[in-house]
Amino acid sequence: MGNITIKMLAKQLNLSTAAVSKALRDSHEISPTTKQRVLDLAAILNYIPHPYAGSLREKKSRTIAVVIPEVADSFFSLALNGIEAVAIEKGYHALIYLTHENQEREREILKDLESGRVDGVIMSVAMKTNTFEHIRLLHQAVPLVFFDRVCEEINTAKITTNDYECGYLATKHLIEAGCKKIVLLSVSESLSISSRRMQGYKQALLDHQMDETLCRVIDYNEDLTMNYDLLIELLKSKDRPDGIVATVSKMTTEIYLACMERGLNIPNDIKVVCFSNDSNAPIFNPSLTTITQPAFEMGKLAATILFKALKRNSMVLSDESAVIPSDLLIRASTAGLL
Amino acid sequence: MGNITIKMLAKQLNLSTAAVSKALRDSHEISPTTKQRVLDLAAILNYIPHPYAGSLREKKSRTIAVVIPEVADSFFSLALNGIEAVAIEKGYHALIYLTHENQEREREILKDLESGRVDGVIMSVAMKTNTFEHIRLLHQAVPLVFFDRVCEEINTAKITTNDYECGYLATKHLIEAGCKKIVLLSVSESLSISSRRMQGYKQALLDHQMDETLCRVIDYNEDLTMNYDLLIELLKSKDRPDGIVATVSKMTTEIYLACMERGLNIPNDIKVVCFSNDSNAPIFNPSLTTITQPAFEMGKLAATILFKALKRNSMVLSDESAVIPSDLLIRASTAGLL
Repeated sequence: MGNITIKMLAKQLNLSTAAVSKALRDSHEISPTTKQRVLDLAAILNYIPHPYAGSLREKKSRTIAVVIPEVADSFFSLALNGIEAVAIEKGYHALIYLTHENQEREREILKDLESGRVDGVIMSVAMKTNTFEHIRLLHQAVPLVFFDRVCEEINTAKITTNDYECGYLATKHLIEAGCKKIVLLSVSESLSISSRRMQGYKQALLDHQMDETLCRVIDYNEDLTMNYDLLIELLKSKDRPDGIVATVSKMTTEIYLACMERGLNIPNDIKVVCFSNDSNAPIFNPSLTTITQPAFEMGKLAATILFKALKRNSMVLSDESAVIPSDLLIRASTAGLL
Repeated sequence: MGNITIKMLAKQLNLSTAAVSKALRDSHEISPTTKQRVLDLAAILNYIPHPYAGSLREKKSRTIAVVIPEVADSFFSLALNGIEAVAIEKGYHALIYLTHENQEREREILKDLESGRVDGVIMSVAMKTNTFEHIRLLHQAVPLVFFDRVCEEINTAKITTNDYECGYLATKHLIEAGCKKIVLLSVSESLSISSRRMQGYKQALLDHQMDETLCRVIDYNEDLTMNYDLLIELLKSKDRPDGIVATVSKMTTEIYLACMERGLNIPNDIKVVCFSNDSNAPIFNPSLTTITQPAFEMGKLAATILFKALKRNSMVLSDESAVIPSDLLIRASTAGLL
């Protein structure tokens, strides 16, 4: 029983796996001579295409992959629901892969997907990812749509929200509520969404003639205990902030607990706004002002675009990219002084 | 290029797919005559085993599937992290499938997994599942471990927590805090964990000579808006409860909001304890008393047992089942009167 793979054909022919794959799909990108070489060797070696190879119209796996950093975050779990709503309607399975924010893990997952296990991939890039070759290789093999955390370097559809405007809006809201010393709690600089939120924050400070020496950006760690200590130090300092913009939902618990520990009242001593989709924000003590992203809609649109491409049997195009705006939901954590 | 599947062999030979699969694996459960029939036909039709077929020792997919109801719940997302911690260590991918509490969806997913896409399956049963044939078929095809929501009818390893004791403990805690009218908010009766929690609740009422006419079990709906209305009605009634045990984490938001709407103070007018792994419970208004399950540990143990079976190339045994106890974490929502 043979078990010839595209990789083995590619090695024998001294071609890339992508080229062999394209030749077998009769792609116009491959010359007739090369195509013939590939088909001849495939016949000699009795190459059998992978039964789940998405590239063969009649042999769809009826499966898509969703590659995301984690699920313990309401944004991603809501986005997943949006993706699955479409997948179920189309009669597809969605396989969910978690990168745990780890680039090496992400690389392994994409390598596995390259082999044609699924028909298409929807992906949100890991925080630690700073090289993109593994994503480029996947994009050559299967249709790919990004959502939220996109890879600018790769030319395919990207579904995002208005991160720059939201960074601006959150900061402006704190300034208008009377804050003078606003801290932005940020994560990885390599993520485009983080840098956009930060740019919005900086522009809002500029536009409102804020004293920039009193405002600053603080990088958050993966280790949550370290963050709690970092917050305690921040709140102890002489120039402690009177406003916090947190760019990630999971920062909320420690911000509240650190303020409690330091005896600081939210919103009287310090005001807090978080990027968050947590449905419990209204029952926090005090209820939390949030930038709430259209998570479900973003997932749904990403899936809709992917299935359109699958139906046409084509790669996904960047001109189908879309930006869906988020909302500022004002609650007690940013209320003005009574 | 052929594309012969186990299913096609089974049909030709008038055998079950499980029998063909076992014959190809040289299982002792299949007679030598049948094995020869299968191997002969496989040779004639040039059957190539699926490259991801977990049944062939040398061709492991190095993939396991995790079938769960949802991820928008901290219990499941933590359990997933436990499963993945083990999978990553073993060099495996974990594919996550969501049933969305739907039996039909669950059936489709298990059917897909039966074909040998993965080496093993870890599963928590959907709320609506009340027949088990689809699970039985999967269990014949690949090693299977249950966690949390198990299927009693199937003889394999089950990782659970002490649901009966926790139902008892939560109720006893409310009785000791002075509650006289305790309502249990429950979900599907077909889930063994729900009925165990309810039995614990009832036993605690009995043991403490509580007036049972004042206490009752209320079934929750999938539609969250309906639940809010149901709670408002409950809190309006003359015999409104002074204590609530909520068996599912996602009930928390509406319980708090409905109490707020009705002007009832938690814990002075009504005390609340929830089965929940929400890391934000300490910052709720008031902080929430919880039965916190060992989610991460349950996932980790389920995966450890599955990998042990994969290493031995055997099915999973029920004598590896384990019960890991949960904790009652007392916070402000059940505090006694000041």
